[in-house]
Amino acid sequence: MKGKAVVAQSGGPTAVINTSAAGVIQTALANPETFTAIYGAENGILGVLNEELYDLSREDPAEIDRLRRSPSSLLGSCRHKLKSLDKDRTDYERILDVFKAHNIRFFFYIGGNDSMDTAAKLGRLADEVDYELICIGVPKTIDNDLACTDHCPGYGSVAKFNATAVMEAGLDTLALYTHDTCTVHEVMGRNAGWIAAATALARRHDDDAPHLILLPEAPFVEEAFIEAVQKCLTDHQRCFIACGEGVKTPDGQYLGEAGGQFAKDSFGHTQLGGAANAVRAIVEQKVGIKARTNRAGTAQRVARHFASATDAAEAYLVGQKAVEAAIAGVHGKMVTLERIGDDPYECTTGLAALEDVANGEKPVPPAFISDDGFGVTEAFRRYAQPLIAGQAEVEIAPDGLPLYARLAKHMVNKRT
Amino acid sequence: MKGKAVVAQSGGPTAVINTSAAGVIQTALANPETFTAIYGAENGILGVLNEELYDLSREDPAEIDRLRRSPSSLLGSCRHKLKSLDKDRTDYERILDVFKAHNIRFFFYIGGNDSMDTAAKLGRLADEVDYELICIGVPKTIDNDLACTDHCPGYGSVAKFNATAVMEAGLDTLALYTHDTCTVHEVMGRNAGWIAAATALARRHDDDAPHLILLPEAPFVEEAFIEAVQKCLTDHQRCFIACGEGVKTPDGQYLGEAGGQFAKDSFGHTQLGGAANAVRAIVEQKVGIKARTNRAGTAQRVARHFASATDAAEAYLVGQKAVEAAIAGVHGKMVTLERIGDDPYECTTGLAALEDVANGEKPVPPAFISDDGFGVTEAFRRYAQPLIAGQAEVEIAPDGLPLYARLAKHMVNKRT
Repeated sequence: MKGKAVVAQSGGPTAVINTSAAGVIQTALANPETFTAIYGAENGILGVLNEELYDLSREDPAEIDRLRRSPSSLLGSCRHKLKSLDKDRTDYERILDVFKAHNIRFFFYIGGNDSMDTAAKLGRLADEVDYELICIGVPKTIDNDLACTDHCPGYGSVAKFNATAVMEAGLDTLALYTHDTCTVHEVMGRNAGWIAAATALARRHDDDAPHLILLPEAPFVEEAFIEAVQKCLTDHQRCFIACGEGVKTPDGQYLGEAGGQFAKDSFGHTQLGGAANAVRAIVEQKVGIKARTNRAGTAQRVARHFASATDAAEAYLVGQKAVEAAIAGVHGKMVTLERIGDDPYECTTGLAALEDVANGEKPVPPAFISDDGFGVTEAFRRYAQPLIAGQAEVEIAPDGLPLYARLAKHMVNKRT
Repeated sequence: MKGKAVVAQSGGPTAVINTSAAGVIQTALANPETFTAIYGAENGILGVLNEELYDLSREDPAEIDRLRRSPSSLLGSCRHKLKSLDKDRTDYERILDVFKAHNIRFFFYIGGNDSMDTAAKLGRLADEVDYELICIGVPKTIDNDLACTDHCPGYGSVAKFNATAVMEAGLDTLALYTHDTCTVHEVMGRNAGWIAAATALARRHDDDAPHLILLPEAPFVEEAFIEAVQKCLTDHQRCFIACGEGVKTPDGQYLGEAGGQFAKDSFGHTQLGGAANAVRAIVEQKVGIKARTNRAGTAQRVARHFASATDAAEAYLVGQKAVEAAIAGVHGKMVTLERIGDDPYECTTGLAALEDVANGEKPVPPAFISDDGFGVTEAFRRYAQPLIAGQAEVEIAPDGLPLYARLAKHMVNKRT
């Protein structure tokens, strides 16, 4: 098949989702016998719906190369959930109309399971109406909770940044334990504790932070927690707690909800942010010591200034492999990462059905959680350690700050 | 004079206070004709009061070199404020007793104005009782609000990290403006807005974050703020706000107090943390858009993984110069940084009376604040730009994370 391609990004930005986009764009540009043009969609699927497309082949190639080293979702992202095909086909039909108008035959969607769901449904409708279209998913999520893949591009970098921040803020507590005895460091992770778990990598010695890790997968029992904090204070004169934003009580309520700091996003997911405050209140009221909270928020997921070289390399690879799969005629699949070995670490790619990814979810398994629920196992360390290895390249401008891409986004004339 | 030296750290940790300590230690060790030993004090002046001293000359020299590249206050810090000399001399006399018992003749105190106050009073009492003691201050504060010095070691690095985090989180908002339209990024700075101001360095283009900067020096007028946010939304479809933790209303109340998130520390200073939440509430309720908050907390001040080479070099220099001053017989002074020029940037050191530093304070001057109060001037950029230049060296272990010093702290036998 031959035609135009659209690449789009969706959901929360990461440190390396642009690296995947660069993998798609550069590989597509290198194969003009298949791809007559490569378009970007402004703000994910919204850009297709609104026919806001721009021609990536007209970008300065040096800027595409810089995109490879830039954080956030610079193609433009969205959190727009399409309705189910059975209920309302309007949006899907509109997308196909736009694709037809531009002879777009390839759709590369970089995102998480909601995006794979969109790509799967779109592909299914195209098949039904006999419009030749290849839909390929490119995995992305800091949460690392996608099914069918060993891990997700974006995770290694957010893990590396948070482990580093915990190491550094842990030393802060070490220095000032006479005054700032407890720090609660909240990290992202709505339903899965992969990011919180990864902060354990900062702990090289028994007295290093984090001393306690709170995961959504391990129900938060207040009495056991207070006891663990008190033991930690006895052992180390301080307590550093890494806390996943999605920590839940045994009856399944988000700890962050108690603090009143939650809202629903447009996917209907609960937006959290109050877990650390809730934990701090418990420490201050029940243990009787002062506690601080750290919460980098969105800054953690786009911390490209200290990203994982392994993560960046794999993010590029999945973009590249998506295009190679499309050239080979693969349709309705997402590129996966398949681990061959831990030591030395080796990883290759595979393919999974978009539907399987869309409907799956991968929490931190019990084998990775310590018996007391406040830490991780050696098996988890073996899993996570290779993913944060190496320093991803950062271009520093003469002003002392990173130099990230600014796309020109040459808009394509509308045809519908 | 010849005798032992004590070096101590006080107050909040920084990315480079250990660099200053290494400057003191390595320079003192290189001058054994003056310094018969160099001791560290566990947790600042508390360590002297409790006679918890350790012999830094027994540390592995490689670990002292690593200390130079490590964040936090690894000698151990405190926030213990001594009473005034007129009211209660007990603590000061105790300190002198400990010094006499060990023949300690040099006291290097690395800290902010409270520490300079302690060092000044101690030096005065020593003079009164004819105990030969040289007290030298080494400046340290992320807040950059010390009098008598052009800027403070620690500031350049927290400025660089926060400018980078704002640049990255700003790109996050750029990508996801259809969903996450407003981000309020809170930075430290109790009474001075130097850190918040420095985030302006992230702004290379008109549409770059931060779009609005809230400084404690510019009273927060709600109506003007709402208007500025609305204009920003019209111009850029999003609004990224950098907010100093010490932002105040026109009647001098901390904005963060309204949120109920304040407490007093043992110096009697108000501890803040609620400013971003207060600003977020205003944006959500009065402008009617969703807003997020980012607040790295203590992690920002110890972010050595992305520190300023200029800051690190100057931090070492002030430590080195403190020892050289002591050898020359200087007493009761703090080493200062004196700027010679901006472009090319050049800086040398000077000396200021400890009392002058102790009683001074240096807010961001009006000439550095834009007319509308929501940004900075070119004069500020010229001032701050050189301070974030260059990448401070980071040692990365094979596990992919920074390798920071672990001091053995060989304790000295008590003599009192």
